Amino acid sequence: METSPLKVALLGGGVVGTEVARRLLGRAADFERRVGAPLELTAVAVRDAQRERPGIPAALLTDDVDQAMAGADIVIELMGGIDEPRRAILAALDSGASVVTANKALLAAHYGELMAAADSAAVRLEHEAAVAGAIPIIRPVGDSLAGDEITRVMGIVNGTTNYILDQMDREGWDFDRALTTAQELGFAEADPTADVGGHDAAAKAAILAALAFHTPVSIDDVHVEGIASVTADMIETARAQGFAIKLLAICEKLVSEGRAGVSARVYPALLPREHVLAQVSGAFNAVFVEAEAAGSLMFYGQGAGGAPTASAVLGDVVSVARRKVLGGRGQYEHASTATLPVLPISAITTRYQITLDVFDRPGVLNAVTEVFAAHGVSIELVQQTQLPASEAAERHAKLVVATHSGTDEALAQTVADIAALSVVNDLTSVLRIEGL
Amino acid sequence: METSPLKVALLGGGVVGTEVARRLLGRAADFERRVGAPLELTAVAVRDAQRERPGIPAALLTDDVDQAMAGADIVIELMGGIDEPRRAILAALDSGASVVTANKALLAAHYGELMAAADSAAVRLEHEAAVAGAIPIIRPVGDSLAGDEITRVMGIVNGTTNYILDQMDREGWDFDRALTTAQELGFAEADPTADVGGHDAAAKAAILAALAFHTPVSIDDVHVEGIASVTADMIETARAQGFAIKLLAICEKLVSEGRAGVSARVYPALLPREHVLAQVSGAFNAVFVEAEAAGSLMFYGQGAGGAPTASAVLGDVVSVARRKVLGGRGQYEHASTATLPVLPISAITTRYQITLDVFDRPGVLNAVTEVFAAHGVSIELVQQTQLPASEAAERHAKLVVATHSGTDEALAQTVADIAALSVVNDLTSVLRIEGL
Repeated sequence: METSPLKVALLGGGVVGTEVARRLLGRAADFERRVGAPLELTAVAVRDAQRERPGIPAALLTDDVDQAMAGADIVIELMGGIDEPRRAILAALDSGASVVTANKALLAAHYGELMAAADSAAVRLEHEAAVAGAIPIIRPVGDSLAGDEITRVMGIVNGTTNYILDQMDREGWDFDRALTTAQELGFAEADPTADVGGHDAAAKAAILAALAFHTPVSIDDVHVEGIASVTADMIETARAQGFAIKLLAICEKLVSEGRAGVSARVYPALLPREHVLAQVSGAFNAVFVEAEAAGSLMFYGQGAGGAPTASAVLGDVVSVARRKVLGGRGQYEHASTATLPVLPISAITTRYQITLDVFDRPGVLNAVTEVFAAHGVSIELVQQTQLPASEAAERHAKLVVATHSGTDEALAQTVADIAALSVVNDLTSVLRIEGL
Repeated sequence: METSPLKVALLGGGVVGTEVARRLLGRAADFERRVGAPLELTAVAVRDAQRERPGIPAALLTDDVDQAMAGADIVIELMGGIDEPRRAILAALDSGASVVTANKALLAAHYGELMAAADSAAVRLEHEAAVAGAIPIIRPVGDSLAGDEITRVMGIVNGTTNYILDQMDREGWDFDRALTTAQELGFAEADPTADVGGHDAAAKAAILAALAFHTPVSIDDVHVEGIASVTADMIETARAQGFAIKLLAICEKLVSEGRAGVSARVYPALLPREHVLAQVSGAFNAVFVEAEAAGSLMFYGQGAGGAPTASAVLGDVVSVARRKVLGGRGQYEHASTATLPVLPISAITTRYQITLDVFDRPGVLNAVTEVFAAHGVSIELVQQTQLPASEAAERHAKLVVATHSGTDEALAQTVADIAALSVVNDLTSVLRIEGL
């Protein structure tokens, strides 16, 4: 296995770029283990190289993009814009470097050209972060479903508009109030046109359509309608009929008048409230994919933000780095790279819900809670219900106890001791509580 | 680009195997375009080679596994069992073939050994179909999140038990009735032990834990509790407190008493009803992943069945085949392989919801519906509500019309003509309806 370092050049020092640099520098040993060779961050090209960036050594900062890329094995492009990153990426590919980008505007405008350049240089151009942030969607659509026929992709791919529509739906706000709040909370830009007008979603729709249907689709091919015309009244009417209004990016393969083709479009639409996409709220993104054999799939997660986007960028970096090291052979990182012990169930931390059939006597609750206290298990909720009288001389009650978290061992011992109490007729059920 | 065919041997002629064979044979041109070389199915090893299999030429059938694998570039293992597929896969890897398998039992028992064998042979061993059927989860966890730290994986990975628990929750049935119904509908086996006892989920938990935490985890390390003890009363109690009961497979990285380790476990647990996983119903699967930078992600889809599993298998086949052709270079299939036209919005088929402010006169509804009829657009629903009287001399009504599907062109023209009607005061809103 090759062990000489792979040189990584980073273009762009914004929120995502800074996060990527910090992780590459701070977790160098992890990355080396996963890739099979060290990843050496050799330069960070930024607009203002004099300004300090916490966590990034000043010696790495430069304002010269070409100098930053010189000799790089992997170039990460997070500059934003179109013309300058296009030039830089083409130069990087031409020099034999693999490229990772999160630049959706660039890809939506020049997808075919950039992919062809990567192909003819026989290197990779990865772009998982360009669509739906941290959600792995490019790899599933391009790779996992490569043996299937995708018929339709329908997604909520813009968190700003989803947050606005969600607040209008939940709070009854009108569009202006929801937008202003989103701006105050940092979910919307001062100039919200790209989001609100649907143009950000349209760029992502173009990339998804090109990838899903293997056909050139640019942002200019996408029909776009934004959400500025959605009123509180429209949302109320939608709700009354069982719908939610969502800004959808839809890519579809279809036959129209005997002619096969694809459609890529973005508009606010009515979705049945029970549809999985209708339940995607706040700034989350989700992409719903329909394929001939696979049926319906959905991918859900955070669509924006520094850390989530950095996660997608670094996944791509590891992927291209592994290919450089292994030359296309070998496996995902697997059992050989770490040897953590597998801990027994007694060691995990969880919460219990215990249901008891107890004799309805004074002091029962106290006898039960005493056992919890003795094991150091804190109770979150107790609910006691008298059970219907039966022929039995003594009345029974049903006791439901939910605990705060504790080790499974302590919880299990508590349960054993409670079952042995004379006031307990039957331990009806024990279930763990997850997802809280 | 290499164009000599890649020889594919298929081991196993069950539901998934037959579906895979039919697709490889029936869509040969598609696969060739996606891979860059023809995929030639050279043999199908089955138990009873004499029996006819519709869609598979008799000449391909053999009952000799080694003969089937001889000279293969790619071996697809769908035999089931452990000892014989283990032997076959090790032999295939040793001969330099890449292997695709859906065999979760085998992987859960021998993950480390098989991956090490693939590594030392410098070929790939892919297994997307072994966990959660058609849902791409192996690739996202192993590849897309390779630059992140996964902290927890929590999934509903067994459709049979999810169907049973779902029916108990919805219908109030007891466990036995739900199981019997699942068996009658083919969602549960005659011997349901592997599903109901949690063992199938445990095998998947072992694979997910090994992949997510890069550490050897076998099915024997997984703590397993099944759902046979879940009663209608437990489900009712859960519901009363805002929970659903789901059989969860949980893989977690944790520190217990200062010792870092992993936990893999399967048990029925209480989940808040608003948790995304609680909303996964019927035979669907979903896997919820938490990673340090990416945050929460969810992957959702069909976890079993011939076509969905075949989709995952064939995705792996295309992936390993591309690597053989391209040697680790090159891109996903992209714009260059197809050139479908991008159709205008007017050509797509959709449904409209139109909201009108009309004058409240006799014959208004008729005037409106006449326009729809003239354009051949069929109406699904009309709702008329009288608006509160204003100072205006004439009362108004609100009319909501939802259409059946039509071309966007016909719908747009209908809207234009309706807006021009003298009885229409205002066209309040036009929205498309999706997801029905």
